Amino acid sequence: MADQIIHALYLAAIVAEAMTAALAAGRREMDWIGVILLGCVTALGGGSARDVLLDHHPLSWVEHPSYLLLTGAAALATIPIARFMHSLRRLFLFLDAVGLVVFTVIGCGVAIGMNMPLIIVIASGMITGCVGGVLRDILCADVPLLFRSELYATVSVATGLLYIAGRHFGFNHGLSAVLAMSIGLALRLLALRFGWSMPKFVYHEDWH
Amino acid sequence: MADQIIHALYLAAIVAEAMTAALAAGRREMDWIGVILLGCVTALGGGSARDVLLDHHPLSWVEHPSYLLLTGAAALATIPIARFMHSLRRLFLFLDAVGLVVFTVIGCGVAIGMNMPLIIVIASGMITGCVGGVLRDILCADVPLLFRSELYATVSVATGLLYIAGRHFGFNHGLSAVLAMSIGLALRLLALRFGWSMPKFVYHEDWH
Amino acid sequence: MADQIIHALYLAAIVAEAMTAALAAGRREMDWIGVILLGCVTALGGGSARDVLLDHHPLSWVEHPSYLLLTGAAALATIPIARFMHSLRRLFLFLDAVGLVVFTVIGCGVAIGMNMPLIIVIASGMITGCVGGVLRDILCADVPLLFRSELYATVSVATGLLYIAGRHFGFNHGLSAVLAMSIGLALRLLALRFGWSMPKFVYHEDWH
Repeated sequence: MADQIIHALYLAAIVAEAMTAALAAGRREMDWIGVILLGCVTALGGGSARDVLLDHHPLSWVEHPSYLLLTGAAALATIPIARFMHSLRRLFLFLDAVGLVVFTVIGCGVAIGMNMPLIIVIASGMITGCVGGVLRDILCADVPLLFRSELYATVSVATGLLYIAGRHFGFNHGLSAVLAMSIGLALRLLALRFGWSMPKFVYHEDWH
Repeated sequence: MADQIIHALYLAAIVAEAMTAALAAGRREMDWIGVILLGCVTALGGGSARDVLLDHHPLSWVEHPSYLLLTGAAALATIPIARFMHSLRRLFLFLDAVGLVVFTVIGCGVAIGMNMPLIIVIASGMITGCVGGVLRDILCADVPLLFRSELYATVSVATGLLYIAGRHFGFNHGLSAVLAMSIGLALRLLALRFGWSMPKFVYHEDWH
Repeated sequence: MADQIIHALYLAAIVAEAMTAALAAGRREMDWIGVILLGCVTALGGGSARDVLLDHHPLSWVEHPSYLLLTGAAALATIPIARFMHSLRRLFLFLDAVGLVVFTVIGCGVAIGMNMPLIIVIASGMITGCVGGVLRDILCADVPLLFRSELYATVSVATGLLYIAGRHFGFNHGLSAVLAMSIGLALRLLALRFGWSMPKFVYHEDWH
């Protein structure tokens, strides 16, 4: 039951990630194929990076090729509806936040299933949650937003810690996941609403 | 027989890819080692990405280290002859197009050999054909050309589809490959000649 | 005994790499999480790339998660002490050079342990030594320094060749490693001191 909800949220989240990536492609004036590719890489890149680093094969889109079709189609569908998306801004920021916590919990679950130690479970959740956006920014030749934006990676770490804590204190997978995702989502939405961010490190002596 | 032709074309193509990558390195004023490395990564990066994502080991250059020597030497040899290459511009664009279709067919063949589903066979061909150039552009801190240029990825998808269709309709590997590569090559050369390209997606409301 | 020295140098080197990466993060005004992540990726990225390409699992930080804590903490600790680091400039350049040769020898050792051919042993050393810095530069949206700086990759290749030559001429692992690292280190320090660099390839006809 919890797994079915998580799966449904996962599908909604990869669609949302592909669509916001398509807008980033549009800002760079990419062609339609570029839009599709950037959508797929952004939506599925985090899980792929995790699986490659942990040697967890096959990758999700290799096992379920329909994910490639779904995210590619979502990116392509963004082109005609982009002009209306501005009014849906809040919805997409919400779905992006949902994606962050869902990806994180899924990534933690994969590492737990491989009997990884605690730190790797957290790292696996964070890689799953954050690397897709990093790849999008690299392919757009930007400094990754992750390194500067509102508690993005922090929310992922917090969600992973809460999920593990839930498991540790005897809650089952489903309850731990729902609790961790709810609190992580609330933290992210509050950070967006109030502009919370981690302190920045500013350093400008150039001697390297 | 077809495999020998494909192998010979593969060698010509990785040499051509390494040489055009060396010119890109020269535009960025890289040193000789940078030229060699960029040549190797561009020529062999697509197949490596495919193999890492599909868990298909050893990688081609790990199994055949001479590919590293060949592409590194080709990149280095580009330095003294760069001034004459302008007159060979058409030859290099031709070899680059050959590389695209050859890499694609080889990538499809790897995925077929692993009994992958249709969509993954196409994706494998495209990754093999296109990722080398994407890595080159990332290492030069450019937005990848792939996302904006004349039907590059499109030709790769079309070649893959034609190859699979050939196999599906009972042609053997060699005939399917030759047909798919010929049509794909023609499409790419026509796109270069007439400046065909996919429509662009231009979007400049900045709200993300 | 030699292995213990190499291990101690390895730990010092990943700390130094994480700290210089933290300064690069500060130049880009990243937040604290970005500083930590860039530190971990720079310090551990070279070995991870090697392991993924050679299918050598588990990755070092997956097997020893404490490396993530160590490099993350070193990056974070850089923030308050950055203002004093300028006076330690020479120490950090020295530790960075130590890292280069230590990573190289470790990377060669991994490939030798997998019975790889000579060229792959050299490539494995170079990937281990150099890719961390390349990832740092990509994440900062810079053209990788590696491709333009003082004999960096060259020192890695030379160190690898010396190590292999030592083994080939019957020295044991420890002696070969110490000799190769000493000569490689000397070469790198001389290159820094006298501004030695590889010749550059400058090419500005734009026809691609």
